Amino acid sequence: MSGVIVTNPPRAAEKDVEALSGYGVATVHEALGRTGLLGPRLRPIQQDVRIAGTAVTVLSWPGDNLMIHAAVEQCSPGDILVVTTTSPSTDGMFGELFATALQRRGVRGLVINAGIRDTAELRGMGFPAWAAAVSAQGTVKATAGSVNVPIVVGGEIVRPGDVVLADDDGVMVVPRERSGEAVEASAARTAKEEASRAAFAGGQLGLDRYGLREKLVRLGVRYESYDQYLREAGSGS
Amino acid sequence: MSGVIVTNPPRAAEKDVEALSGYGVATVHEALGRTGLLGPRLRPIQQDVRIAGTAVTVLSWPGDNLMIHAAVEQCSPGDILVVTTTSPSTDGMFGELFATALQRRGVRGLVINAGIRDTAELRGMGFPAWAAAVSAQGTVKATAGSVNVPIVVGGEIVRPGDVVLADDDGVMVVPRERSGEAVEASAARTAKEEASRAAFAGGQLGLDRYGLREKLVRLGVRYESYDQYLREAGSGS
Amino acid sequence: MSGVIVTNPPRAAEKDVEALSGYGVATVHEALGRTGLLGPRLRPIQQDVRIAGTAVTVLSWPGDNLMIHAAVEQCSPGDILVVTTTSPSTDGMFGELFATALQRRGVRGLVINAGIRDTAELRGMGFPAWAAAVSAQGTVKATAGSVNVPIVVGGEIVRPGDVVLADDDGVMVVPRERSGEAVEASAARTAKEEASRAAFAGGQLGLDRYGLREKLVRLGVRYESYDQYLREAGSGS
Amino acid sequence: MSGVIVTNPPRAAEKDVEALSGYGVATVHEALGRTGLLGPRLRPIQQDVRIAGTAVTVLSWPGDNLMIHAAVEQCSPGDILVVTTTSPSTDGMFGELFATALQRRGVRGLVINAGIRDTAELRGMGFPAWAAAVSAQGTVKATAGSVNVPIVVGGEIVRPGDVVLADDDGVMVVPRERSGEAVEASAARTAKEEASRAAFAGGQLGLDRYGLREKLVRLGVRYESYDQYLREAGSGS
Amino acid sequence: MSGVIVTNPPRAAEKDVEALSGYGVATVHEALGRTGLLGPRLRPIQQDVRIAGTAVTVLSWPGDNLMIHAAVEQCSPGDILVVTTTSPSTDGMFGELFATALQRRGVRGLVINAGIRDTAELRGMGFPAWAAAVSAQGTVKATAGSVNVPIVVGGEIVRPGDVVLADDDGVMVVPRERSGEAVEASAARTAKEEASRAAFAGGQLGLDRYGLREKLVRLGVRYESYDQYLREAGSGS
Amino acid sequence: MSGVIVTNPPRAAEKDVEALSGYGVATVHEALGRTGLLGPRLRPIQQDVRIAGTAVTVLSWPGDNLMIHAAVEQCSPGDILVVTTTSPSTDGMFGELFATALQRRGVRGLVINAGIRDTAELRGMGFPAWAAAVSAQGTVKATAGSVNVPIVVGGEIVRPGDVVLADDDGVMVVPRERSGEAVEASAARTAKEEASRAAFAGGQLGLDRYGLREKLVRLGVRYESYDQYLREAGSGS
Repeated sequence: MSGVIVTNPPRAAEKDVEALSGYGVATVHEALGRTGLLGPRLRPIQQDVRIAGTAVTVLSWPGDNLMIHAAVEQCSPGDILVVTTTSPSTDGMFGELFATALQRRGVRGLVINAGIRDTAELRGMGFPAWAAAVSAQGTVKATAGSVNVPIVVGGEIVRPGDVVLADDDGVMVVPRERSGEAVEASAARTAKEEASRAAFAGGQLGLDRYGLREKLVRLGVRYESYDQYLREAGSGS
Repeated sequence: MSGVIVTNPPRAAEKDVEALSGYGVATVHEALGRTGLLGPRLRPIQQDVRIAGTAVTVLSWPGDNLMIHAAVEQCSPGDILVVTTTSPSTDGMFGELFATALQRRGVRGLVINAGIRDTAELRGMGFPAWAAAVSAQGTVKATAGSVNVPIVVGGEIVRPGDVVLADDDGVMVVPRERSGEAVEASAARTAKEEASRAAFAGGQLGLDRYGLREKLVRLGVRYESYDQYLREAGSGS
Repeated sequence: MSGVIVTNPPRAAEKDVEALSGYGVATVHEALGRTGLLGPRLRPIQQDVRIAGTAVTVLSWPGDNLMIHAAVEQCSPGDILVVTTTSPSTDGMFGELFATALQRRGVRGLVINAGIRDTAELRGMGFPAWAAAVSAQGTVKATAGSVNVPIVVGGEIVRPGDVVLADDDGVMVVPRERSGEAVEASAARTAKEEASRAAFAGGQLGLDRYGLREKLVRLGVRYESYDQYLREAGSGS
Repeated sequence: MSGVIVTNPPRAAEKDVEALSGYGVATVHEALGRTGLLGPRLRPIQQDVRIAGTAVTVLSWPGDNLMIHAAVEQCSPGDILVVTTTSPSTDGMFGELFATALQRRGVRGLVINAGIRDTAELRGMGFPAWAAAVSAQGTVKATAGSVNVPIVVGGEIVRPGDVVLADDDGVMVVPRERSGEAVEASAARTAKEEASRAAFAGGQLGLDRYGLREKLVRLGVRYESYDQYLREAGSGS
Repeated sequence: MSGVIVTNPPRAAEKDVEALSGYGVATVHEALGRTGLLGPRLRPIQQDVRIAGTAVTVLSWPGDNLMIHAAVEQCSPGDILVVTTTSPSTDGMFGELFATALQRRGVRGLVINAGIRDTAELRGMGFPAWAAAVSAQGTVKATAGSVNVPIVVGGEIVRPGDVVLADDDGVMVVPRERSGEAVEASAARTAKEEASRAAFAGGQLGLDRYGLREKLVRLGVRYESYDQYLREAGSGS
Repeated sequence: MSGVIVTNPPRAAEKDVEALSGYGVATVHEALGRTGLLGPRLRPIQQDVRIAGTAVTVLSWPGDNLMIHAAVEQCSPGDILVVTTTSPSTDGMFGELFATALQRRGVRGLVINAGIRDTAELRGMGFPAWAAAVSAQGTVKATAGSVNVPIVVGGEIVRPGDVVLADDDGVMVVPRERSGEAVEASAARTAKEEASRAAFAGGQLGLDRYGLREKLVRLGVRYESYDQYLREAGSGS
């Protein structure tokens, strides 16, 4: 693995990041055609927190946090640090000291596809984090890696400067070129969701609202009374 | 998979459901001879909530929530929606909009052997849920499934109208024919537990209370001082 | 498996346990050369609690809690019960009744490499626990095991009387012979961490503080502008 | 768990079992509307073997093979022993000695939702097996369970006397009442597959054979040249 | 997810693919700086087979193989079909009929980040495959996906026309722009490995060949006799 | 982690190792009271091979094989190399070149609680191996570890010089002080197994041979005809 630290990558437009911070991960993910989600493995260490920011990416060797040190210097206000490893790892590569350094630089939070530690302290200092594992296991600073190159987390590509959005439902990425489109689509999606919410609260059914009754028929789904069903299933069920 | 939506299945007696809501999952599970638990994979998205209700069951294709829409119409006050998929899935099949529709119909909560999303919103609206995963991943409405047929979750069969009981320890099912028996057995178990609690708080040992000293002897378990043990283990351990 | 219950094993010095309770798991783990962590599988059932105590160990058959009953009698004030099974198990071997008995004896908490239940009740009574799973699944009392023999949890050996330390980041063991050394090393580590925290809060970089710039050079990590990187990566990335 | 050993359950018609042994698991699974598969966790310990037989079912406590001993007596020629445990287990509950006893009784093989051992010996004696794990871990004979009650494996219910079919692709169950239907449907499916195979070997495309081109259009899937795609994706991908 | 089928993407140079087929996955992975491996989850269904070819990529909905049908038409001699799903899935999306169609078109094998079935038949017809699971579970043809777009498998990006190399050690991708470089680097690596093999067979140690003795010293690794070690470890270990 | 390479540890008596090589893992595991098994995670890369030897142990950093190089020098004829990592890892730390060096030194095989590569080549050269994963992922030589210290694999302690026994059922360790006892107990166990095998082949039941009928009665297991069972289970099952 050749190591490179890329400086000053382009970042998504600040106003788009700001606007996206008003929407939940599920909404933006839907708005972008159900793309961008970094999988179900990343879980928040806190509850009821949502952040949006621009990615500074780190690719580290498992059990080694050298490149996170290199990444700190590349971080600016509004960034979110996104870390993965070349092989799966649950080691606690990140803790309170890193968070102190990042908080000072205006970084909004951490997404790490590996382990995290000092979770109580991180909650205490208000530095939000999403991680694949919680583990106190310490790491070394011995092997090269890269900063601000495209990385893959949970089957999605995260590039430096892409928008990262995280809340209780997980983490997603919006490619920086699509941030404007994402804002618009999320607004539209939210309007649609609000109308549906009102309709459902008023008693309408999704079957009717989305025209699904006909689809059920077309798929051959039939309605049966419980007695009919029992007769059909026979004594075998 | 042939799709069928079964209407008006029998439901467990309301008074039994009410009575069972007074007991924890562990207690009822023990009271019924250690049966009915839907395994350790289902976890609550909230803390310190317990619900009991009658099952409306859904069998869906992975990545597809069409049949949940069909199921909403089959739900009545006092029900709990129980969803599984034909293959393992972590996709977020259920969110705030469904909860809005279900809450309006008097449904008490959700048990889903797949993913859930909008978890912060669900906690906010007081709609409790137990799920195998939290994921914002969206789903389609394309493939047939069934509603109110017997389904299998965590190695247990859940039939429509069965009692479902869920708390911080997990989720269990009580066959609707056994709901009365479950109430009685749970009351008896609780009385027994209370007596044991008082005894243990007073310093009695389980070894004595349950007559286990003799069993240890029969099984050949011996007591040794630390020095004896070291000598026996030799330098090898 | 021959069953043995070892009585009165030596315990780590009380003052060392007391002193270690002032440090987090990550700190002591680092202080002891990154050893002793019982892996990422053990998670707390509560938040923001830290305990330290001396281990009473249990080796049980899966699905069987007979030996926990035997272990209760071996527990003294200041102990922590540490349970594992001869094969992986998620069954709920431990609940509120055991906690009642242990609390009466002055036991500080539970570490169980298997399942736990009555988690809401345990939080309610202030009995902290770390477990590999939460499950209401009940167990039997049928098969022999051992108490106060060395056991293995998460790749580490825990012997009776060793210091066990647990917080939100996981659980670790300090061999009883090393408890004094651990106290000293943890104090030194904490002083070092405090200095680093102040430095990082003041804007110093880890790259400079730990002399890592030179290491990056030695490892061949290069700095590139985003444009350079793009040119080098070619159209392929 | 109350233990019961059910004697002489009805068995699927022998001629149906015989007929089904001529089809692969994937074929019969499809023929029955994509039902009956016992999940991807069960793997064969041998290659290129297919068996069909009638189920004798066992529900055991984890780490305990007492009930397999009880089940041997209930086995007749043409049966397949199907074992699961009340909680997940990888212990080696079954080995060469059991296989010797079963082979003598004309049993055709083993399906075990737990561990197996003596795998080399089992292959050597021609006793086929499908298991969730291979492990030499021994078990006890201490706790009650049941024989010939309905059990759940991989999300499917297996009742005594149901047809069990196993090959390199996994294991499936055919409810004994549906064995005749399964034979017919499998024959039809096979004929259809043979026609498709010939067509595909001759160069026809599934897109044409199954009329999928129109479906792609309806779903909005578009064809683009590579250059078009690149332009559309922009520099961002 | 917007669906697109990209036609005629560029392919890696045929002579490079041919040349790379002479090297194992581990060798080429090392030669390219330890990059490109599609992780440990993909396993071969056969033994002792190695293939190299150009990727035709498929992104499918879980439980749905519609897009594989679309992909067959895009396949040419020398291709390898590489399939993944938008969410994790173990369903058997691919079997003998697809293999028949692909073999007719000169496709060299399959890499699928999901399930496969008809494994015995595939081995029988000499169509090699690497899969994340073996499962007979059938799928539908209901939801859109894409063909020949960049996909992510095991943390690596696979683009149409990239070189895919697979053997008993797993699967890797070589970006099509780097195929020439990969050939050269693999030849060099192989020469180096051959020299090392000869040296090791002759009794040289890696410690000497790679100059590692000095590194051990620098890292503070010390040599001790067993007696010294015991004394140092004390009675505690 | 302090690194140490321990030289010339004591080894189990050669004649005991030789004698144990005549027994399978399951037999010796049972003979020693069901202890010593290194869990179900370690699988052979070949079939129908059994080895016994004395352990040379390695504790490595994840993703780093430096210490395997150091271990080669400590290996003598009759040894088996046993490797684990400080955190879980699937990286391919070991391949053909190491096997060449070890084979030259008379080492009998490898047990690695991590990944292995060059599996086809290892089979070809007759160097047997058991591993937790197969992966071509390469590793670095950057971080200290230890050789010939006690390590933990699969919940068991392996010390240098202990007997390691591996076959198709997995891997086990016999403490060097117990090797003589293991030989005797394995011989006795084998004699007992042979008698049981003959009895079972002759039609005797385990229920009778092991006196289990009475135990079933004591545990309250009852026999019921299928009709009785159905009546009791009611319409609910």
